[in-house]
Amino acid sequence: MAARSKNALTYKDAGVDIEAGESMVELIRPLVTRTFNPRVMDTFGSFAGLFRLDYNEDLFKQNYRDPVLVACTDGVGTKLKVAFAMKTLDTVGIDLVAMNVNDLICCGAEPLFFLDYLAVGKLAPQKMARIVKGISDGCCQAGCALLGGETAEMPDFYKPAEFDMAGFCVGVVARKRLIDGQSVEAGDVAIALASSGLHSNGYGLARRALLGRGRYRPTDRPAELQGASVGEELLRPTRIYVRSVLSVLHSYRVKRVVKALANITGGGLAGNLPRVLPAGLTVRIKRGSWRVPPVFKLIAAKGPVDPIEMLRVFNMGVGFVMIVSPHFANAIMTRLRRAGELCWVLGKVRKGDPGITWA
Amino acid sequence: MAARSKNALTYKDAGVDIEAGESMVELIRPLVTRTFNPRVMDTFGSFAGLFRLDYNEDLFKQNYRDPVLVACTDGVGTKLKVAFAMKTLDTVGIDLVAMNVNDLICCGAEPLFFLDYLAVGKLAPQKMARIVKGISDGCCQAGCALLGGETAEMPDFYKPAEFDMAGFCVGVVARKRLIDGQSVEAGDVAIALASSGLHSNGYGLARRALLGRGRYRPTDRPAELQGASVGEELLRPTRIYVRSVLSVLHSYRVKRVVKALANITGGGLAGNLPRVLPAGLTVRIKRGSWRVPPVFKLIAAKGPVDPIEMLRVFNMGVGFVMIVSPHFANAIMTRLRRAGELCWVLGKVRKGDPGITWA
Repeated sequence: MAARSKNALTYKDAGVDIEAGESMVELIRPLVTRTFNPRVMDTFGSFAGLFRLDYNEDLFKQNYRDPVLVACTDGVGTKLKVAFAMKTLDTVGIDLVAMNVNDLICCGAEPLFFLDYLAVGKLAPQKMARIVKGISDGCCQAGCALLGGETAEMPDFYKPAEFDMAGFCVGVVARKRLIDGQSVEAGDVAIALASSGLHSNGYGLARRALLGRGRYRPTDRPAELQGASVGEELLRPTRIYVRSVLSVLHSYRVKRVVKALANITGGGLAGNLPRVLPAGLTVRIKRGSWRVPPVFKLIAAKGPVDPIEMLRVFNMGVGFVMIVSPHFANAIMTRLRRAGELCWVLGKVRKGDPGITWA
Repeated sequence: MAARSKNALTYKDAGVDIEAGESMVELIRPLVTRTFNPRVMDTFGSFAGLFRLDYNEDLFKQNYRDPVLVACTDGVGTKLKVAFAMKTLDTVGIDLVAMNVNDLICCGAEPLFFLDYLAVGKLAPQKMARIVKGISDGCCQAGCALLGGETAEMPDFYKPAEFDMAGFCVGVVARKRLIDGQSVEAGDVAIALASSGLHSNGYGLARRALLGRGRYRPTDRPAELQGASVGEELLRPTRIYVRSVLSVLHSYRVKRVVKALANITGGGLAGNLPRVLPAGLTVRIKRGSWRVPPVFKLIAAKGPVDPIEMLRVFNMGVGFVMIVSPHFANAIMTRLRRAGELCWVLGKVRKGDPGITWA
């Protein structure tokens, strides 16, 4: 073996620290393994993560008939900038999981596993562990395994204290239980599930309206936010609807009373509800049927942002919508409340132009 | 509906262009759908991508017994900076797919579908279409469907002409066909498959050695590179080994003659071969048994980079290794060559300390 020559370039000189990477792997291992279940084949550190779709052992028997795999990917956008400003890194991982699993359950799928991609300016193991802590918390909330991930140290792309992250989630649904909105009909009821605030959408606009030059500092506590600072409000983790929505789906396995599910992300109600409605149907929304959280009123006032633009960008307090058979709406709302959701009747499905209309 | 008020902030003011996003979606649709097969359920634009694991229709009947899902994620690292400098955007997508599928096949899995996350400074639809063209080409080469993706416009994170990308891939393998290296024994043969150059690893060091201050410009054509410019050489797409490796696996379905597979990425042979070897075994590598492409000699000379560091960071010309039963090594190499691979006997498995040793 040749001796290491002096003045020679090494990978670490070039800004990539392989040893810091190894130390990080040790720190995050318990955060990853606590999300595991008996279907995960433990191969920490191998080329890929392995997950048994069918599991025939007596205690955990679970097989799928004609399984459809469901996959999606998403990031958290510029909500990250608020996390950098607040130096709070252990909640954006919850947002990352939420943005993916809330999309995934819209077709009736059960999330199975999650993978993350973290791109950082400088690999600081303790900091990375705080980020992965959030991802691990989100996976526990959603009941999915954190099956793998990649941390890329890219000093030419990101400032030392900054990073970007992407998530990827896979779930499964038996083909005959797929929910695609095709059975929605006039008279069905749209149930609104409360959001926890902005979730992870519209931060370009929200940050400009609240944190732009001459506006609030992240630590300011305007009376409108009822005790929260602007930074805390903007960082509030996205609500994860997996357990409550799946509990409804599991309790109506035979009767197909849940007809469509919509995650209300960028584009708001007007942009997301039409994605799950058959042609010729509209949701007629009752104005004032739900509670608009104060942060949206503050953004509208401080921007100022036009009411139509607000609805086009933000969830306005409705994070998820279930369209259900009218006979079961009350029972489903009772079950959702028992699972911890705040929910309201948003409106009814009517014949009409695609999209939403206002009562 | 309220009229749009003047001077009000809109999402586009804040740097996010929803209409450009919609125009991009139309441009990339054909690039995405050309990767589809009958198992993809066409739901372009819905909340998640759907893929039928079992497909019972006569023509395409394909079912898995005790299926294990295999997933991985990776990016292409700072190879992107070379793409920006060369203004060549339609090949890094091939790298993105390659980095994922070459990892995925290491456990014997067949890639099923791929998703991409693109984070851009400014959403320019034509430019995005060129990037997705590369991803689509990679998916076609790997025989997997481009099932979904996310494009995030993040003007505060990336320069207008720059972007980052992450890929996610899911595959499947029947549990009893999993390849995990546990059956490797002394006497087995390690076959080296030629790389197409740097693949997507070590660009921090490679760029500093070749493109750092006072070194080459991307357009320079040093004699050592035999006609290629430095930029062209550094941008050469990562070879995708899926079809040739799977063709070998499919031809030995009964006899389990392929015992371990390793994708040679960051860490080189010394970092990646031990990941697939049982304790107490080493690969004794014959020096000079394969051809080292000129780009590695140029990096070592120009850095200068120490020979040990070169081996610790780069693939040095060996992009993938198969460890096989000695009786079948020749037949497998014949099959690999017929599938278009350049390959050599890299060495033999011996008892010894984990890792690699040199003959």
